[in-house]
Amino acid sequence: MATRQLVVGIDIGGTNTVFGLVDREGNILAEDRLKTSHYEDFEVFVAALYEKIMVTRNKIESDIQLLGFGIGAPMGNINKGTIEYPANLPWKGIMPLADLFKRHTDLPVIVTNDGNAAAVGEMIYGGAKGMKNFVVITLGTGLGSGFVIDGKLVYGHDGFAGELGHTAVRPEPGNRECGCGKKGCLETYVSATGLKRTMFKIMADSIIPSELRKYGFDELDAEVIHQAAKRGDVLAKRAFEHTGKMLGYMLANVVAHTNPEAIFLFGGLALAKELIFEPAKESMEGTLLHIYKNKVKLLPSQLSTHNAAVLGASSLIWSIKES
Amino acid sequence: MATRQLVVGIDIGGTNTVFGLVDREGNILAEDRLKTSHYEDFEVFVAALYEKIMVTRNKIESDIQLLGFGIGAPMGNINKGTIEYPANLPWKGIMPLADLFKRHTDLPVIVTNDGNAAAVGEMIYGGAKGMKNFVVITLGTGLGSGFVIDGKLVYGHDGFAGELGHTAVRPEPGNRECGCGKKGCLETYVSATGLKRTMFKIMADSIIPSELRKYGFDELDAEVIHQAAKRGDVLAKRAFEHTGKMLGYMLANVVAHTNPEAIFLFGGLALAKELIFEPAKESMEGTLLHIYKNKVKLLPSQLSTHNAAVLGASSLIWSIKES
Repeated sequence: MATRQLVVGIDIGGTNTVFGLVDREGNILAEDRLKTSHYEDFEVFVAALYEKIMVTRNKIESDIQLLGFGIGAPMGNINKGTIEYPANLPWKGIMPLADLFKRHTDLPVIVTNDGNAAAVGEMIYGGAKGMKNFVVITLGTGLGSGFVIDGKLVYGHDGFAGELGHTAVRPEPGNRECGCGKKGCLETYVSATGLKRTMFKIMADSIIPSELRKYGFDELDAEVIHQAAKRGDVLAKRAFEHTGKMLGYMLANVVAHTNPEAIFLFGGLALAKELIFEPAKESMEGTLLHIYKNKVKLLPSQLSTHNAAVLGASSLIWSIKES
Repeated sequence: MATRQLVVGIDIGGTNTVFGLVDREGNILAEDRLKTSHYEDFEVFVAALYEKIMVTRNKIESDIQLLGFGIGAPMGNINKGTIEYPANLPWKGIMPLADLFKRHTDLPVIVTNDGNAAAVGEMIYGGAKGMKNFVVITLGTGLGSGFVIDGKLVYGHDGFAGELGHTAVRPEPGNRECGCGKKGCLETYVSATGLKRTMFKIMADSIIPSELRKYGFDELDAEVIHQAAKRGDVLAKRAFEHTGKMLGYMLANVVAHTNPEAIFLFGGLALAKELIFEPAKESMEGTLLHIYKNKVKLLPSQLSTHNAAVLGASSLIWSIKES
């Protein structure tokens, strides 16, 4: 039997760290996870993660050649292989993730933020195959983004390009507090969490009944709001409209920066389909300068939603192998 | 005597079209201009412009080899060599500028907007020599921008990257009307014209005396406001503070998109030095996500202010010769 070439994709999140062994077509042959929040010590976390990956690898029966480790993490710095001051992880300061990984392996280790990983994933496995200029916006707990220009991921001078979640929605400091310490960041409005905050604001402002009035803040999530909106809940629909409209304004600004061929929406909120795409498209087109109107495609990510973040991370290794 | 290699840089503006014959070091050996607004017919304009360039060329006594024509123009499209729906030029619709030029010459003709031309100029002759990732913001009648990523000018899929002047300052449609037909565009606040509009707004809102209260709207310009601010005029200083602050917010968003090493300010308003740089720097740093703080240099353009736009346009030809 021929040796099978695989890469490891790792998605480090605040709650779980998920990984998979992935082939060039984007099939995940094996996968597992560990609880990020169980590890106070970052070095212990990396050792446990590497160990678990090796155990998982050994369960695959075919003959395997591993090519490298692609890692998506909040505030991942692609130039230095570090995670720097993440708001939602258990560790503080600058974590030398790639260096610690290199204690265990000589294979390539690439670290970047989830938005950049999603962008490369879309190019390698998804809807951006063959595209040279596009942007991916990830809509999860926060808002991430990745820019591909001229067929290459934009790193930035310090390795931190594409942190659109922390752009200011308003010139005046807004009043929504963000995990990053600032106020009025885009992701406090446009993300799964932002949608929930908007939903509570709308319920506070309005007297219209809503099935969501029975939920506590900690219980409610974007999926529940999505289902309510699908059933016709007026306020839930209004929350999506508001969120989509804010997203569209931001997308018009993205277009004026780099004039992409397409923008892909990735992550939980994008699964709400027309509930988010319609208001986003409408406000984007309404805000765009005439030279851009009706030219930029607004598309759902084509990465399989199951473990899309792992796919994105794994694609980082294929992209260096093929560049 | 050795043959001297020169390129032609052309800056098409609403009032004047200025051109120069430029050597590799950025010396302008000859220059002239014609009145853009005198030409109702675009084809006649191009023929007259080419003719005048040839007359100017023939006045230079050394032996010359021309290498090409670089042209900066509002809404210049670098992919197609066109000017498309410019707000401030006498012609409407899509003008096939490069194609018309090609009737007269076999040499390369490159058309782009003034922001992109300024960015390449900064890289070829100015302060961005050796930089791989930087942004130039032009502050003239309007606001333009050019992005260089990984040593290359960002064109965008449709050839229109970097039209930041028409990004929306506020999610809600603002009330300042823009020449592009939209409302609340950044350049209605941050540009020489924007400064003047802000100055009039401040004079309307305040009862503090100002030497600028004697000027009509049509008479006042950024240079007069600059001189008044230097003399200590309270309201003129306030207008600069407000403009710089808005600029800084926008620059923080630019950083979150592409994480440049430096941002250069180019054009008339940048000549006001600390009056514009100080509030811009302060609001940029105050808005930046922590990972970017105190890393991005905010610098004045190093292109000689006399005919900087012509230099920028001419640099387009050197950049293709050397890539």
